[in-house]
Amino acid sequence: MAYFHYQDKKVYYEIHGEGKPLILLNGIMMSTKSWGIFLEAFSASNQLILLDFLDQGQSDKMTEDFTQDLQVEVLRTLLAELNLEKVSLMGISYGGEVALNFVTKYADKVDRLVLFNTSHRTSPWLKDIGDAWNLSSGNAMDYYLTTIPVIYSPEFYNRNRGWMDARKKLLTDTVFSNKAFMDSMVRLTRSAETHDVTEGLKGVTTRTLIVSSEQDYITPKEEQMALHKLLKNSDHVILPGAGHGSMYEKPALFTALTLGFVNAKTLDMTVL
Amino acid sequence: MAYFHYQDKKVYYEIHGEGKPLILLNGIMMSTKSWGIFLEAFSASNQLILLDFLDQGQSDKMTEDFTQDLQVEVLRTLLAELNLEKVSLMGISYGGEVALNFVTKYADKVDRLVLFNTSHRTSPWLKDIGDAWNLSSGNAMDYYLTTIPVIYSPEFYNRNRGWMDARKKLLTDTVFSNKAFMDSMVRLTRSAETHDVTEGLKGVTTRTLIVSSEQDYITPKEEQMALHKLLKNSDHVILPGAGHGSMYEKPALFTALTLGFVNAKTLDMTVL
Amino acid sequence: MAYFHYQDKKVYYEIHGEGKPLILLNGIMMSTKSWGIFLEAFSASNQLILLDFLDQGQSDKMTEDFTQDLQVEVLRTLLAELNLEKVSLMGISYGGEVALNFVTKYADKVDRLVLFNTSHRTSPWLKDIGDAWNLSSGNAMDYYLTTIPVIYSPEFYNRNRGWMDARKKLLTDTVFSNKAFMDSMVRLTRSAETHDVTEGLKGVTTRTLIVSSEQDYITPKEEQMALHKLLKNSDHVILPGAGHGSMYEKPALFTALTLGFVNAKTLDMTVL
Amino acid sequence: MAYFHYQDKKVYYEIHGEGKPLILLNGIMMSTKSWGIFLEAFSASNQLILLDFLDQGQSDKMTEDFTQDLQVEVLRTLLAELNLEKVSLMGISYGGEVALNFVTKYADKVDRLVLFNTSHRTSPWLKDIGDAWNLSSGNAMDYYLTTIPVIYSPEFYNRNRGWMDARKKLLTDTVFSNKAFMDSMVRLTRSAETHDVTEGLKGVTTRTLIVSSEQDYITPKEEQMALHKLLKNSDHVILPGAGHGSMYEKPALFTALTLGFVNAKTLDMTVL
Repeated sequence: MAYFHYQDKKVYYEIHGEGKPLILLNGIMMSTKSWGIFLEAFSASNQLILLDFLDQGQSDKMTEDFTQDLQVEVLRTLLAELNLEKVSLMGISYGGEVALNFVTKYADKVDRLVLFNTSHRTSPWLKDIGDAWNLSSGNAMDYYLTTIPVIYSPEFYNRNRGWMDARKKLLTDTVFSNKAFMDSMVRLTRSAETHDVTEGLKGVTTRTLIVSSEQDYITPKEEQMALHKLLKNSDHVILPGAGHGSMYEKPALFTALTLGFVNAKTLDMTVL
Repeated sequence: MAYFHYQDKKVYYEIHGEGKPLILLNGIMMSTKSWGIFLEAFSASNQLILLDFLDQGQSDKMTEDFTQDLQVEVLRTLLAELNLEKVSLMGISYGGEVALNFVTKYADKVDRLVLFNTSHRTSPWLKDIGDAWNLSSGNAMDYYLTTIPVIYSPEFYNRNRGWMDARKKLLTDTVFSNKAFMDSMVRLTRSAETHDVTEGLKGVTTRTLIVSSEQDYITPKEEQMALHKLLKNSDHVILPGAGHGSMYEKPALFTALTLGFVNAKTLDMTVL
Repeated sequence: MAYFHYQDKKVYYEIHGEGKPLILLNGIMMSTKSWGIFLEAFSASNQLILLDFLDQGQSDKMTEDFTQDLQVEVLRTLLAELNLEKVSLMGISYGGEVALNFVTKYADKVDRLVLFNTSHRTSPWLKDIGDAWNLSSGNAMDYYLTTIPVIYSPEFYNRNRGWMDARKKLLTDTVFSNKAFMDSMVRLTRSAETHDVTEGLKGVTTRTLIVSSEQDYITPKEEQMALHKLLKNSDHVILPGAGHGSMYEKPALFTALTLGFVNAKTLDMTVL
Repeated sequence: MAYFHYQDKKVYYEIHGEGKPLILLNGIMMSTKSWGIFLEAFSASNQLILLDFLDQGQSDKMTEDFTQDLQVEVLRTLLAELNLEKVSLMGISYGGEVALNFVTKYADKVDRLVLFNTSHRTSPWLKDIGDAWNLSSGNAMDYYLTTIPVIYSPEFYNRNRGWMDARKKLLTDTVFSNKAFMDSMVRLTRSAETHDVTEGLKGVTTRTLIVSSEQDYITPKEEQMALHKLLKNSDHVILPGAGHGSMYEKPALFTALTLGFVNAKTLDMTVL
């Protein structure tokens, strides 16, 4: 719906509804278009803001390698553009990493933070998995098989054969066969390699909800248990039977947790 | 604030705020007064309705044994009293059992259902634990030590020594030394002995959120895993580091989950 | 079969079979007689040594309060009595606490250590549960209902109704109605109140196997996760579907884990 | 050390030590050489038998596709060759699948069965992961990055950087650059595609130990929970902090569990 500029790049964003502002930050393969089923629910009482990071969706492509620090500044610029003093952020996976990075730099801009399937650092293990993705990027079917099954819980993947098969066809025929898209994917994957906010999180007191999936094999729940210990004012919830792509596997829980946490009034615990 | 009559008994209830109606159903030792820290948050966008079951708080005492079927009818009468066509219910433990029982009888009256720390049946194991409670009811300190520590996670109980010690003093000095209160507790405990909605839940399609605590030693998470399988349209979440008294151990999560689930618009999954 | 003296007290022990010595240390309500089903398997290739702690089984009763340090010295005396330079210890619950305490003092005497359902300290939570036990000790049925159901997983307790009912009758008719036995139970429970080897375990390098039960509501698995971090050379295993009384709920696993860990040759990891 | 023939193929095996016979069945990338660190411990009291399946190690290569039924017959022939009436089997991953398949056909030949990280069927999810492996088989580094990180728990992979880096160099320089080896890997992977013993396991009563790793992202613990329900006389254990390659991540537990379960005398539960 609209664009702003970050340096010489055009960045795409959308605004839906009115109310307390909430920005959803995409996972690495996602775009503003991925939030279709959530639009109505999330914009019912909130000013819902969607954003394509650079190298995602309708935002400009990059041409050289970068780090997630760039996306942090893109997000910072969006806030300035919209004159938003304070927003709540929901980030999933890549988007959660950018959100965590953002809060280490601009904590005063963040009201509440919701993190689904997010790690506080790209470990050697996760970096090597990212390298496997990139090494498979020249072949659409190889890329699909390397990246997609592990994103879902076996339960979900095995149960929704029709939906998964349709996705396999769509993704291999179109999306993963698109060289420009794949080049973006490689750069986005690389941009997360140096992610590590272990030190930066010390002192951060933003009210944060951390959500793990019991069967997340990309950012396993043990990662979020460590993050929960690092993040002073955080709460932690686990979704049994869900994988890394929790927003699609448990959409009602994704919705309830995000909206519930972002919109609820702060409790006065001194009454207790 | 107000009373209605169920048969010859006075039943106490409160209404706070306006909006989509939500009734909170108390755990066995609780009363409308237990919801103090949640009042503001829960009544901000909802018509919040609190209720003392018979033998609880400011509702009339019973004199003879009864079953939870009685509380179901009390709840049904409240709805009629308030001319409520459809409500959402949040029940914790005893309150969750009544809510489950209610939905097997009056499913058309329930919009959404949120169950914290709830079993679908009183197993022989749980019945014997209830008997241990009742056998200790003649001695305030024995009752405290038998019932309270297991209600909390070791983590919470060990960390909040000041708060727990104050509660120990209050409960043993006053509440558990009060014969009328203890007689009610014994009857309430007995009223749950025959609870079993295994059969009744077949065919129930009410949108339900089931919340387990990882360290719940009264209604362990395995119980809710079974309940989740029984209840067609249910979602399941686990709270790590929490015990049976999840509303006090994780009040922000209790709030976010309940309000988020009750208030979110239904997603149109056909878009996916 | 035999006795030795510790100070002025007679201590009962048994020896079965020959081979690498292995001492089984009883849980609080147990005695040498509790190991019946394991005798043949455990003495097949090992010198199996059973021991009644003071105030247990056929050992002398105490008359005043004591701490587990006393049982540690009893165990030390048994080793001297049998001229055992080095033994392996398996302790469950109370026996595991004594074993942990022992290893902080006499690490050179211990070859391998196996701990089932053991905490490294009696937390305020666990102490209050112990006080609940003691406050119920005057009434056999109250004591049964307060102590026994929580010792078993709900699954086991609900499935083995016949066995549990027979135990209820036996324990309430005889054992828990025996004042001398109950006085011992109260003293044994108190003797564990001050248990805390957090500091003592630093520097301990004894090869240790730590076994948790997923549904242990007395010494929850979170306790053993903490112990595993404290104990340098430890391995950790979790038994799903088992409660605190793991030796009775999963006897084949109890046997395999204990004998396998105690008897296996140390691996030469430099080959890896 | 020795060979036998299955049809026109030479099959390699080794025998170490004497005692109750125990055959270790390799995971897909393994061979008899993979058991180096375990040789001494496993042959101390048992007749340890190692076997290279067809297309593994020193056994003959295949030239066309086959299924695991072939390996079952290879194993059956080995038993005949050695005049073994009854053996115990330990299988990990691929080896566990063959062991499960074997027991559906020759249950009378199996004394006890130990299964590490094993699924009872190749689900669509697992099949697609296998296809990703095969599609990467033409590039040594791609194959390494696609297959190896997910085999280990993040914890192990991140902690043992030196060992993992040495393995990366060895595997990419030599093993995964060897076309003959990679052709075998592709065939072996395909041979497991049709694995499904769901029906065959009905009625099987072989004493079985099922071991899961908490962080197994190839054959997740949920698979073994399902297997445990299918297999009448099975016990189930979970290894926290371990991944799919449990024998290397937790070698002492691998040893204790296998030897303990295989060698312990059967308990006489009627004494209980």
